[in-house]
Amino acid sequence: MTTGFDRMWDQLAVIGRDDTTGGYHRFAWTRTDHDLREWFASECAARGLELTEDRAGNQWAWWGDPDVLPGIVIGSHLDSVPAGGAFDGPLGVVSALATVDALRVREAATGVAPARPIGVVNFVDEEGARFGIACAGSRIITGALTADRARGLTDADGVTMAEAWRAAGRDPDTMGPDPQALGRVAAFVELHVEQGRALALAPDGTEDLSDPGRAVAIGTEIWPHGRWRLEIPGEANHAGTTRLEDRHDAMLGLASVVQQTRSYAAALGCVATVGKVLVEPGGVNAVPSHVTAWLDARGADEHAVHATVDGVIGVVRELGGSHEEESWTAPTRFDGSLVRRLTGILPDAPLLGTGAGHDAGILATHGIPSAMLFVRNPTGISHSPAEFAEPGDCHRGVAALTAVVTDLCTSDHRDPGTQTEDLHA
Amino acid sequence: MTTGFDRMWDQLAVIGRDDTTGGYHRFAWTRTDHDLREWFASECAARGLELTEDRAGNQWAWWGDPDVLPGIVIGSHLDSVPAGGAFDGPLGVVSALATVDALRVREAATGVAPARPIGVVNFVDEEGARFGIACAGSRIITGALTADRARGLTDADGVTMAEAWRAAGRDPDTMGPDPQALGRVAAFVELHVEQGRALALAPDGTEDLSDPGRAVAIGTEIWPHGRWRLEIPGEANHAGTTRLEDRHDAMLGLASVVQQTRSYAAALGCVATVGKVLVEPGGVNAVPSHVTAWLDARGADEHAVHATVDGVIGVVRELGGSHEEESWTAPTRFDGSLVRRLTGILPDAPLLGTGAGHDAGILATHGIPSAMLFVRNPTGISHSPAEFAEPGDCHRGVAALTAVVTDLCTSDHRDPGTQTEDLHA
Repeated sequence: MTTGFDRMWDQLAVIGRDDTTGGYHRFAWTRTDHDLREWFASECAARGLELTEDRAGNQWAWWGDPDVLPGIVIGSHLDSVPAGGAFDGPLGVVSALATVDALRVREAATGVAPARPIGVVNFVDEEGARFGIACAGSRIITGALTADRARGLTDADGVTMAEAWRAAGRDPDTMGPDPQALGRVAAFVELHVEQGRALALAPDGTEDLSDPGRAVAIGTEIWPHGRWRLEIPGEANHAGTTRLEDRHDAMLGLASVVQQTRSYAAALGCVATVGKVLVEPGGVNAVPSHVTAWLDARGADEHAVHATVDGVIGVVRELGGSHEEESWTAPTRFDGSLVRRLTGILPDAPLLGTGAGHDAGILATHGIPSAMLFVRNPTGISHSPAEFAEPGDCHRGVAALTAVVTDLCTSDHRDPGTQTEDLHA
Repeated sequence: MTTGFDRMWDQLAVIGRDDTTGGYHRFAWTRTDHDLREWFASECAARGLELTEDRAGNQWAWWGDPDVLPGIVIGSHLDSVPAGGAFDGPLGVVSALATVDALRVREAATGVAPARPIGVVNFVDEEGARFGIACAGSRIITGALTADRARGLTDADGVTMAEAWRAAGRDPDTMGPDPQALGRVAAFVELHVEQGRALALAPDGTEDLSDPGRAVAIGTEIWPHGRWRLEIPGEANHAGTTRLEDRHDAMLGLASVVQQTRSYAAALGCVATVGKVLVEPGGVNAVPSHVTAWLDARGADEHAVHATVDGVIGVVRELGGSHEEESWTAPTRFDGSLVRRLTGILPDAPLLGTGAGHDAGILATHGIPSAMLFVRNPTGISHSPAEFAEPGDCHRGVAALTAVVTDLCTSDHRDPGTQTEDLHA
């Protein structure tokens, strides 16, 4: 198992990497994305899995026929944020393929085939780094993002998603909800690198990276989270000849918005970030006439998140600006019976909520029993070249995922609520 | 005269304009710049002027032979800041060509030819919008910007000036100081749209756009000004999963730098601007790991400008960052005898200093007698699509420039200090 994992990891490591910084630039429907999809397809073909694509371009590879009996799906995504790390997404895909390998070894040794189809998924455009909407692939097939809106989304160069599809040889008219693809999924378990330090800290708060029982956690919920676009006005003018008192400098508005964002989030106990800005006209010797800033806000408490965003929007309004909600995801609790079953399979695993959005959350909201496994991250750093998980912990993640899939593919009559037949209820 | 001016203005109006915003994007050595240079060449050819290019690519069109007797040069530049206005630069070039037309009419009527060669110049890359160094064309030929440094400057896409030259069909090895081109210039008078409201306000401070005596001013000096690149550090991390107390967010550093920039400038009586920033990694869901910001600072008092910049740099240092001076131009007083002579020709014209850098300032620093004329700007807005001058004032500018060139091409023995033979002293 570890050999296959390491080989796949090494192959992926060179795709989309900036060799100067070590950061990954893997945006949806780019040449790099194409290379990642080809890699995924070839790995699935090597395992005899049947590859299909749904109406958002997500790749599903099946072992067994999910049109006869819905299957257990594992996997994640291969795209990245700008200058992202190697683990966010790929760890789940590689671990899923390694899990298939482990199940094949087990089948050869015991002669027992899985009682359900098993699927491996590569969701497209999970980060939303190119077109601004996270989990675009799963949102499109569930209908949470309409095809009309998706097709019109633009990247930083003004290229629409529809144009990007055409450039990638796809017909954007085929984009849309895909109940058939979703109907094949009895349950979805997404393995992901942890993006905080909860597993790296012992219950007493001291760092402990050695406890094997804390290498993998079970995800219980995704915090409510959203993105808002803020338009901060100003007036273009010459930076050398316009008196300070005659200026309307949008950059000063941005400074105020950034500081108030931190103040509201700190006061209300959630997290909020301004991570992307566009300054117009953007000349060194021009007073900024407009700043577009994006606000990301999340937290365990939905009301606190809303209060934070309302506070920031109030600042923007005082500046004469406006805002638009680009996405909002209500708190998502993963399927109770599925989480309970996972705690039976992995009795040592801690339970964790997370501030990051995931495709598992989108599917859960759509009524598909979903859950997550998180693999320990020593520093908690994510969305950065420094993102990391120890090889030993990665292999523990594969072992946990293998145990989960093995169990979910077996009927269990001890708890009616966890019968596999009920997983798609 | 007005007919030719208006025709040229209409021809230029469509080159490099964003039809949505009305702003101009005319960066050096782009396709748009090529179109502007071709336009200039064809206008010069239509007038029988002899076009030459110097070792920075500045275009000089001569009426008469400046290698026999150095000539009087008028003109400005055709490039723009991002989303700039129509007047900054082109007004000076079009007015210079219209002045040649007026002198030709006068020659035909009186039979008196100019006693000196007359040159029209189009300086390249005055705004520095693409490669970050303002007045690059005049700085290269005077040696204020070395060819080695210029060739290595990069634009936002990482393209070097050397590569841009090759893409434009030029050999960057030919770039460098050009004493021969400069030796042809007895004096340079650059007409430019005003970039503040000094001419729009009567001496009592009330707006008065009707006084024809305040349509054109004589430039006396260019304030000291400079640009500094500020590097503000942070640590990349996930915006949803990293606790506020674990963050090192470079955007918060930027907010502090922007606010302190305004505070120092206001307290010290100069102007300072942060007009351009680069945020890394620039993802909506990523805590900024680094911000590069550019500081522009100017003022009538050199010590106040330095104190402002020192204050801002202190803030950057406290944040753990660093800075680099990209350019610094000491105060530039235009040639005293030339300014005195202009006040004799245009006795009603107010005298003005300016916070904007100009090629005339670079030539003046190099010892070439230089001065400027400023045309009234009703709002003072510049570097913006709203930049404007009334047609009547533009025509008054051409008339003033015509009077200046006519006078400078005539020997004047009343004041030895203003004899044309002394202009290149």
